[in-house]
Amino acid sequence: MSSSQAGSRPGGRSARVQAAVHAAVKSLQAEAGRGELTVPAVAERAKVTPSTIYRRWGDLASLLADVAVERIRPDGPPAETGSAKGDLSAWAEQYAEEMSSSVGQELMRDILAARSQADNPARCCNLVRAQIDIIGERAKACNEVFPDTETVLDVVVAPIVYRSLFVDPPSAEHVQALVERLWAER
Amino acid sequence: MSSSQAGSRPGGRSARVQAAVHAAVKSLQAEAGRGELTVPAVAERAKVTPSTIYRRWGDLASLLADVAVERIRPDGPPAETGSAKGDLSAWAEQYAEEMSSSVGQELMRDILAARSQADNPARCCNLVRAQIDIIGERAKACNEVFPDTETVLDVVVAPIVYRSLFVDPPSAEHVQALVERLWAER
Repeated sequence: MSSSQAGSRPGGRSARVQAAVHAAVKSLQAEAGRGELTVPAVAERAKVTPSTIYRRWGDLASLLADVAVERIRPDGPPAETGSAKGDLSAWAEQYAEEMSSSVGQELMRDILAARSQADNPARCCNLVRAQIDIIGERAKACNEVFPDTETVLDVVVAPIVYRSLFVDPPSAEHVQALVERLWAER
Repeated sequence: MSSSQAGSRPGGRSARVQAAVHAAVKSLQAEAGRGELTVPAVAERAKVTPSTIYRRWGDLASLLADVAVERIRPDGPPAETGSAKGDLSAWAEQYAEEMSSSVGQELMRDILAARSQADNPARCCNLVRAQIDIIGERAKACNEVFPDTETVLDVVVAPIVYRSLFVDPPSAEHVQALVERLWAER
């Protein structure tokens, strides 16, 4: 999980550069839309040289993917509802909502588009795994049975992401049915 | 399904333009790699004007997505193995292989990257649906029980695509386990 933090020791110059460049991308995206985004514009806003950006991120697509992974990083652990099934239902419904929003779609596209930093999709998946692990640990602490994280990825997460990207975002009822499938098969 | 053929009456000028432009993209991709691809280069190779391409496809990303959808169009119906479960297993294994190849990954990225022709991901999903429908119809003709196509998408196709794009391509054993899940729940 912590590979996402590679090269960004908190408080170091590297971390400051990363923070400045990420902030520059976000403010330029908010102002101008992505058509206007260029490495020189980001560099000027972040007060670094373009070569600093090229050296660290390789190209604009990889920088955008890196920013997108940080933006989908969850604010905190999944909400506690009193049961593992309730936690997973609530988390999955919120995740589906985020994935189906236009911002969520754009972030997923940015994450998948970058070719030179191929670990961004895996970082994205690891953020999801970590949330599911938290629900699984809570279940364990209460002696509740909970499926393993890879099964949750296949049965619940994959259909949400596939439908959001390729078909139509799943309805709340559909997401609920995915969670039910997991409990029905045990 | 036939929406993918919109604007391309066989034999008409529109179809000839489409065929020439698609062929130009494929030959340029084969020669030079995607870094060199530009709309003017494609237009020159296809013997059309750049404005013909902009008018019809909007931008390069949309053209690449359109070509990618045609390239993932299956050559024929799923192989017949004597049972619906066998047909689905064989199809899913082959689909997973294609998705996990570097060409398959590149095509999926092209399909998802285009913003101005947003129906390409849906066309991609509809090609998959049509293959599963064929297996379902064979099953029906033999009085075999077969799950509905949307369930196959959720349980088998979505994990294959999600893992190929975000994690690691699923192994043949993993794909087999996805098919087994479908039969276990009936």
